[in-house]
Amino acid sequence: ARPRVGYFYKDKKKTSPYMERLRQLRVGDFKSLPISIRENISIYDAIVTMFTQNVGSLTVVGEGQTLRGMVSRKDLLKSALGKTDLQQVPVSIIMTRMPNIIMTTADEPVLEAARKLTLHQIDTLPVVEAFIDEKGEERYEVIGRFTKTNVTKLFVQIGSLGAQ
Amino acid sequence: ARPRVGYFYKDKKKTSPYMERLRQLRVGDFKSLPISIRENISIYDAIVTMFTQNVGSLTVVGEGQTLRGMVSRKDLLKSALGKTDLQQVPVSIIMTRMPNIIMTTADEPVLEAARKLTLHQIDTLPVVEAFIDEKGEERYEVIGRFTKTNVTKLFVQIGSLGAQ
Repeated sequence: ARPRVGYFYKDKKKTSPYMERLRQLRVGDFKSLPISIRENISIYDAIVTMFTQNVGSLTVVGEGQTLRGMVSRKDLLKSALGKTDLQQVPVSIIMTRMPNIIMTTADEPVLEAARKLTLHQIDTLPVVEAFIDEKGEERYEVIGRFTKTNVTKLFVQIGSLGAQ
Repeated sequence: ARPRVGYFYKDKKKTSPYMERLRQLRVGDFKSLPISIRENISIYDAIVTMFTQNVGSLTVVGEGQTLRGMVSRKDLLKSALGKTDLQQVPVSIIMTRMPNIIMTTADEPVLEAARKLTLHQIDTLPVVEAFIDEKGEERYEVIGRFTKTNVTKLFVQIGSLGAQ
């Protein structure tokens, strides 16, 4: 649908205090807990985890919650279509790996994270903290997930406040 | 995550013009096109349609685009887990049916539709127009879909305007 941003343009040029606050909101205050699995578990078990945890994506982690991959409902559904033996094949085969994972951090503005979700057409960003491992390489510890559901809830909250 | 609505409270009690506009936005201006299938197609073909159309849910329709059911990526993934023969079983077996389908209309406020998405933990609402069929029963013609992606895009637009 064509965006009707015109609704917002006419009123005034100067920034509203609400808009200022909106742009100051950070991912860390709106993120959800991450649901993580290890890369050697089967695709089947990953799907089961997704259902028991009621989430749309899983982070795949190594030691110390280090980010290794992401699997979405879409990835799992695609593998279910093929002739893959879901009980035998590990998720590491189908997961999205670094450097192809789009991430966010606790201090990133919510607006920027939401933009990443729409731009890359994904439902979830892992929320990470970068650190340098013993080999001097940059790694990412998973500390949360930020999803379109988080954005939708925030949108509803903001709109409800307007009605006070 | 605990919502930090306090960010918005302190400033002022009176309603901002931005917030007024936000609450006036209607689903009809932000919805996407519906992607529809017939109820006799196989679960397998429904999954393929979801991938070729790149959507997270499908509306199942009868004559005249009348709403008969909804299938989500989650529904399809669940059926892929079991022993179901995806190529033989029609989507009608697994689809969500009336009266369990949560719907919206073009003139419903976007905020109300977003609230339905969060409240019912679903990704998509079919956008419908009600009519009375020849038997005097209420039916719903599917004219679009409204998703968390639509809300996220709108959120980004609103935030970007604040930065003008």
